[in-house]
Amino acid sequence: MAAAIDFYFDFSSPYGYLASQKIEALAAKHGRAVNWHPILLGAIFKITGMKPLPELPMKGDYAKRDFARSAGFLGVPFKMPSVFPISSVAASRAVYWAQGKDAKKAVELVKTLYRAFFVDDLNISEPETVVKVAAGLGFKADEVRAALNDQAIKDKTKQEVDAAIAKGVFGSPYVVIDGEPFWGVDRFDQMEKWLQTGGW
Amino acid sequence: MAAAIDFYFDFSSPYGYLASQKIEALAAKHGRAVNWHPILLGAIFKITGMKPLPELPMKGDYAKRDFARSAGFLGVPFKMPSVFPISSVAASRAVYWAQGKDAKKAVELVKTLYRAFFVDDLNISEPETVVKVAAGLGFKADEVRAALNDQAIKDKTKQEVDAAIAKGVFGSPYVVIDGEPFWGVDRFDQMEKWLQTGGW
Repeated sequence: MAAAIDFYFDFSSPYGYLASQKIEALAAKHGRAVNWHPILLGAIFKITGMKPLPELPMKGDYAKRDFARSAGFLGVPFKMPSVFPISSVAASRAVYWAQGKDAKKAVELVKTLYRAFFVDDLNISEPETVVKVAAGLGFKADEVRAALNDQAIKDKTKQEVDAAIAKGVFGSPYVVIDGEPFWGVDRFDQMEKWLQTGGW
Repeated sequence: MAAAIDFYFDFSSPYGYLASQKIEALAAKHGRAVNWHPILLGAIFKITGMKPLPELPMKGDYAKRDFARSAGFLGVPFKMPSVFPISSVAASRAVYWAQGKDAKKAVELVKTLYRAFFVDDLNISEPETVVKVAAGLGFKADEVRAALNDQAIKDKTKQEVDAAIAKGVFGSPYVVIDGEPFWGVDRFDQMEKWLQTGGW
């Protein structure tokens, strides 16, 4: 089997959400697995000087329109959350913890947390909301709650974000295929061709 | 015939160049004409706080890679200019002047100036380079040279950029179809579906 695809995403990123609902099908079609990497754009934006899209003059208004339109184009359910953007720390920690418990269910956790935020308008910046979503997938609520405050999980999350930054990850979604970086759900067409041809 | 498509672009924008080589075919396929609007991103960036892509940490390195890869993906010849970004004032003024002389040849002037910069590595920020390119299309060199310093053409260019900003144009390429805005050559797939369906 060819090398896994690295998929970096922030839980507060609408385009990351859209990509999260599509990446497995793309990878599977080309015999690839997916490595799921939650990142924290807040930490990355401090380095790049970027800001959340909706805060940018002119571009912010366009972005909100484009989120919904892109979701419709891709056939992915989407509702703009009433609180946005949010901190994605709790959701990211839960995922890194879950990956150490059950890799397959950790993937379900990513997709379910994303839908909780971008479909059901649940505020997944709140630890208890993350606990509930994880419990719905069979994780033990007490264990999730403890993990969110576990220093080892906090450190692991920070290390993963630092490692992503060191690899050049500056946005969400950000996908690396055999060393080639692709930024944005609007690069799925190029990713598809890259997977077919090995590059051009 | 349905309403024309409004196509906004900056001559220093690689993605604007790629779009300029594709927009007419897309429009023609759906029975639309194209209105060509050169803009000056420098003036717009002062309002939005945005910067030229290559100046951004991390994102800049990615962008340079993505310019060439996107060109290859779209089958458009591309060579990263040795001087970049540049002022697009002279090229924009020439186009607004040419539109008053011969609308059809003004379109050729846009595409030819863009290729001069992004294929032949000619610095189209230099007025004499713009004059030469225009002369190659049959415009009179002396008239072009005079137009670049004509106060009426300067004013016209400024008015057009101000009008674009008033309509929310913040990047390049920026396309408006029946009131719906699309930013980026990577929105051509959504534009195609929008033209087919009238929206979703």
